[in-house]
Amino acid sequence: MVTMQTLKVELNERSYPIYVGDNLLSQPDLLQQHIPGQEVFIVSNTTVAPLYLKQLKQLLPDFRTESLELPDGEKYKTAESLAVIYDKLLQQRCSRTTTLIALGGGVIGDITGFAAATYQRGIHFVQIPTTLLAQVDSSVGGKTAINHPLGKNMIGAFYQPRCVIADLSTLKTLPERELAAGMAEVIKYGLIADADFFDWIEKNIHGLMQLQPELIDTAVVRSCANKAKIVAADERENNQRALLNLGHTFGHAIETFVSYKGWLHGEAVATGISIAAKFSKMLGWLNQQDVDRIDSLLSAAKLPLDPPGDMQTDDFMQLMAHDKKVIDSTIRFVLLRSIGNATVNSDYDAAVLKQCLDETTNH
Amino acid sequence: MVTMQTLKVELNERSYPIYVGDNLLSQPDLLQQHIPGQEVFIVSNTTVAPLYLKQLKQLLPDFRTESLELPDGEKYKTAESLAVIYDKLLQQRCSRTTTLIALGGGVIGDITGFAAATYQRGIHFVQIPTTLLAQVDSSVGGKTAINHPLGKNMIGAFYQPRCVIADLSTLKTLPERELAAGMAEVIKYGLIADADFFDWIEKNIHGLMQLQPELIDTAVVRSCANKAKIVAADERENNQRALLNLGHTFGHAIETFVSYKGWLHGEAVATGISIAAKFSKMLGWLNQQDVDRIDSLLSAAKLPLDPPGDMQTDDFMQLMAHDKKVIDSTIRFVLLRSIGNATVNSDYDAAVLKQCLDETTNH
Repeated sequence: MVTMQTLKVELNERSYPIYVGDNLLSQPDLLQQHIPGQEVFIVSNTTVAPLYLKQLKQLLPDFRTESLELPDGEKYKTAESLAVIYDKLLQQRCSRTTTLIALGGGVIGDITGFAAATYQRGIHFVQIPTTLLAQVDSSVGGKTAINHPLGKNMIGAFYQPRCVIADLSTLKTLPERELAAGMAEVIKYGLIADADFFDWIEKNIHGLMQLQPELIDTAVVRSCANKAKIVAADERENNQRALLNLGHTFGHAIETFVSYKGWLHGEAVATGISIAAKFSKMLGWLNQQDVDRIDSLLSAAKLPLDPPGDMQTDDFMQLMAHDKKVIDSTIRFVLLRSIGNATVNSDYDAAVLKQCLDETTNH
Repeated sequence: MVTMQTLKVELNERSYPIYVGDNLLSQPDLLQQHIPGQEVFIVSNTTVAPLYLKQLKQLLPDFRTESLELPDGEKYKTAESLAVIYDKLLQQRCSRTTTLIALGGGVIGDITGFAAATYQRGIHFVQIPTTLLAQVDSSVGGKTAINHPLGKNMIGAFYQPRCVIADLSTLKTLPERELAAGMAEVIKYGLIADADFFDWIEKNIHGLMQLQPELIDTAVVRSCANKAKIVAADERENNQRALLNLGHTFGHAIETFVSYKGWLHGEAVATGISIAAKFSKMLGWLNQQDVDRIDSLLSAAKLPLDPPGDMQTDDFMQLMAHDKKVIDSTIRFVLLRSIGNATVNSDYDAAVLKQCLDETTNH
């Protein structure tokens, strides 16, 4: 049975649909209506391509279809991988009417989106996310980027796709660790603006981790709806979109510290959320009971709460100084007033931040 | 005496002014009003920086001001130079509120603009063009890019500056060859849409080449006005903006053939315009008298009419296949119906194109 829900990201002439449902990769019309030319170039990785690339190409029998497989992992979200995409696009003489398709998780979506934003000053782009994290978060909203050795996502562009096709069937092949990483972002939506959703995730976390279809469907749709609403209100993160970075300032520091190796993005975000909750409590905003609820839910989703054992307070401070939310040398944090109510704050006591990190890193 | 004219590029919330006049680099308010934060990062090159960097920094006494000098020349408009800019921005911990300023010619403007478009997903950007070519063409309209070994400007973005400050006084230090290169783009505006301007350039070419102030002022203002009008109507080159590429399809092939060495962009464009005029005549569109007028004016501006001696028809055909105006494997050319009336065309006899190139390359 093919069921599908369609959400819309409202951005005037850049508006686009998010399709969520089972077996969407068996529906040629869904994809084809969003490809204006005759040329398609698919970017995937060596893990996802063997599973779904052939199926995707079969949706496009009448198109010229090229493809490229990058190695799998955040450590390959680099200028070097980007250059490989550009080289192949030019060698294959892909023109400005080519549509780039990202088939994979957040890394593939981010780097392919940035290639689409910059190849010949911008070509058509379609997101086909195959991980939970990409389906609920990174494929929606047009943030594209590559990492730099000095900071995560430092080079990038806001560039919206023509559509997002989130085929829930692809999650069946997802390793549990990747599923957990995606759950960190799902939990994030509950924390920043949707307390009812947080309650629902709490009640259903075990079924979610077992991939019960109707639960996963609800989690993806509600996450995308939350994200689409925020992106529509603030596409270029001048304001409330920054809330989506709950846990990310600490999390990006962890990812940069480990050189994008060994930690999945969602795992670093989970630890970052736990630190942000503790920091919020120390500032007198969040009560201990809520901190415990948050840590319990992250743990139930098999996510880590502690940063790497060899990471110290100074490491956090130095790495966070590069954060994109820094203004006039002050780091702005997304903090919690309560579950379902986040805020961006730069007016905190630096000594409390240090104390929080000292306690966190001496675990 | 400080005289100044202000033109506006009308692009709704991305609208911005072009200031044209003498001694604009001695007016702090002009620049400062377009810098929203407290941090400025200036990119220049080793030729221009010794002449104007100190003067520019003196306009910004109350700002944190960093700078970087790239080597001079089109062959440095590369991914490697771009990486040098990113590295320095991150090493200096430049935040998302930094304003990038391009101080130099077209190469500096294009690469700095692309860095501004992509650093932390986009930061503020100001153009201070110091060559005629940059003042009349490349600094206006938001095209930013780097070159790729397989094609000119293949990686880039549409990204508008906050303002363009064209200080005509800086042209006094411009070598004659650079002046001539800029004149190729001035002549281009007359050819594509402004026959009266073409007549005026013809009458005044010797005074223009001698940098007579009132003539140069008119040439820059009228060129910018022509460009601003076209860009306002078609920012992302879906339509009439392609006319600005008269001579550029042939010209880019020349630049790529010589690996961006030995030929200035404007010189390659001049030769490209001459070839486009000849091709237009062979298709029955332009008469011989107009072809002669065009070649005479280019020659009077000390510009080359012939491609590199070792470049053959096949070289043109292979290199032009990568052109950004290619749609479904057909190269679209900007051709002339008459002086002041250009059109984009893909409906030509391929044998005539080959004959035109054969005649041109066997000079």
